[in-house]
Amino acid sequence: MPENVPLAKAFRQTDYQIAGHGTRNVQVLKDALNEVDGQTDSDMYGKGKLIEEFQEKMAEYLGKESAVFFPSGTMAQQIALRIWCDEKGLKKVAYHPLCHLEIHEEDGLKELHHIEPILLADENRVIELEDVVNMEEEISCLLFELPQREIGGQLPDYETLESISSYCREKGIRLHLDGARLFEILPYYQKSVAEVCALFDSVYISFYKGIGGLAGAILAGDEAFTEESKVWKRRHGGDLISLYPYILSADYYFDNRLAKMEQYFVEAKELAELFNQCYAVTTRPAEPVSNMFHVHFQVSKEKLEPILVEIYETTGIGLTSNLREIGENSCYYEVSIGDQYETIPKDRVKKMFEMLDERLT
Amino acid sequence: MPENVPLAKAFRQTDYQIAGHGTRNVQVLKDALNEVDGQTDSDMYGKGKLIEEFQEKMAEYLGKESAVFFPSGTMAQQIALRIWCDEKGLKKVAYHPLCHLEIHEEDGLKELHHIEPILLADENRVIELEDVVNMEEEISCLLFELPQREIGGQLPDYETLESISSYCREKGIRLHLDGARLFEILPYYQKSVAEVCALFDSVYISFYKGIGGLAGAILAGDEAFTEESKVWKRRHGGDLISLYPYILSADYYFDNRLAKMEQYFVEAKELAELFNQCYAVTTRPAEPVSNMFHVHFQVSKEKLEPILVEIYETTGIGLTSNLREIGENSCYYEVSIGDQYETIPKDRVKKMFEMLDERLT
Repeated sequence: MPENVPLAKAFRQTDYQIAGHGTRNVQVLKDALNEVDGQTDSDMYGKGKLIEEFQEKMAEYLGKESAVFFPSGTMAQQIALRIWCDEKGLKKVAYHPLCHLEIHEEDGLKELHHIEPILLADENRVIELEDVVNMEEEISCLLFELPQREIGGQLPDYETLESISSYCREKGIRLHLDGARLFEILPYYQKSVAEVCALFDSVYISFYKGIGGLAGAILAGDEAFTEESKVWKRRHGGDLISLYPYILSADYYFDNRLAKMEQYFVEAKELAELFNQCYAVTTRPAEPVSNMFHVHFQVSKEKLEPILVEIYETTGIGLTSNLREIGENSCYYEVSIGDQYETIPKDRVKKMFEMLDERLT
Repeated sequence: MPENVPLAKAFRQTDYQIAGHGTRNVQVLKDALNEVDGQTDSDMYGKGKLIEEFQEKMAEYLGKESAVFFPSGTMAQQIALRIWCDEKGLKKVAYHPLCHLEIHEEDGLKELHHIEPILLADENRVIELEDVVNMEEEISCLLFELPQREIGGQLPDYETLESISSYCREKGIRLHLDGARLFEILPYYQKSVAEVCALFDSVYISFYKGIGGLAGAILAGDEAFTEESKVWKRRHGGDLISLYPYILSADYYFDNRLAKMEQYFVEAKELAELFNQCYAVTTRPAEPVSNMFHVHFQVSKEKLEPILVEIYETTGIGLTSNLREIGENSCYYEVSIGDQYETIPKDRVKKMFEMLDERLT
């Protein structure tokens, strides 16, 4: 966000920010490295104690046979879908219309792998069993994103997941989990990570959302699958001689933040309630099912920006550095609760919301 | 290299190692971060001061309009060739039979980009002008690796390079430089990096060979080319939210080691001479043209290993942790001179070579 945008500038000057873990700066890496012995050997092109031990730790955590560390989820997920397509000899998959692969990856799946996606469900809701059952075309793999980020982080019922998993197994369709925010939904489902992952043939998790690491991803599944994924990782140019900056930071923040997901979830629900009490403000979903939600304003972006700047300057609390327009008279932004929310004095939060409600009325 | 291989084990226990900059461990990153302010903002998906300033610095250094930072050379080079193929509408390129893309990348160029390579020249020598002129098939791009690593780091005459460059321009063939070890050959050619790069349409350089950084690469060319490369970088899964561990270490070691390339070159020539004075030992090339060369032994790997272990244990100097067989009665390994060579007392080097000569006679 450029410095010369007034909202972004005012946001950066606030004492407190409601969402996230704080600024993404070099200190994030320094903190992770602080207690690592400098004499620790680097990983070497996917091999060595440092990477192998972390992969084993993640495989065990996810309840999968094997896991591979990737520099990015973009790389890991394209590769997962490619492997399942090759297995069946059919380059067709299905996913939500707002899937990361469809809208954020410059069509890598199509351009590099020539895989055709079938878009399931209306883009404003999650995929249900009937969307899968009613699919007319045959596919190799169904990708499920939990929670569905672009619609505020919504989730299907757990029973729906179970029935979709059963249906896919019966029909010979591989089920892949886009678990970029998997840790964040466990408190809502009240399930262990292994229980959720058992419904899927392959699982991707990320280390820079709720975990707050630098970057990097894990792709997990059975051994034959992960071994094949290593070949594709090299083809993509992701088999770096050293991935340890990402691995060490993933490991450090995983250990430090995994136990905080319940807290983030409770805080997200509390915060959403405060938003929903304001005039012309609603959250999506109305009650969060993870640490994230979207805040929708029935006010134009143009009108809202100076109001937010004034609130930031008066209260010292920042909500967001950017707003996205929806038509002429409404806008929204995304919230993901992290370490910062609990550091803000409750009375200051209350005053900020009072001012927001008053200015919007 | 596994700890239980006697040669690797003995090598790790030596006081000095002839080649390289030292162990690849976490300290390499810690040293690079030491003087970086923790409050420095991360790059964000290829944007931000940290990445943009380094890209500009490298573009200026290479004498190219624009430069893009990539996590790996594997990714950068496939993308360069893809862009030139798309430009001409012809998915054919030419390169040396021992090109990195042909032997170390699990056929990513073919599997992801469906580009067909024409292998030029005999694998035991560098590409000459007549190889290019005599090519029967039309191609979009010719990739030139300087120096040709897998044959000991050999180079064509500079005049040959110039004439190939002229020929390609005349014929509408794009010329791409695999400059993984470009810094290392400048002292031999006695040319500025910009003079060499001016012969090529696109250039890739690496930061973990002579420079000794963690990983990462730069791809440089004109603005239209680098802009297109960013789209492919995202498709490959290389547009990470944070690449700064690689950028900061690349920048740090670039500043610290660029001026030492002349020294490494002189030391490589000195060392090669010492090897060539030993019985049953020859270097390839006989006189190095960069900081690297191959050491060939007219002795079987099986016979040589215990001799080297004895030499390491007696002299405290390690030559290599691994040997590659060529047939039954010879073997070789690769040397790249770095910071370590100058730290070894000359009399100890001399004694080590006396012992090597004696044991092989």
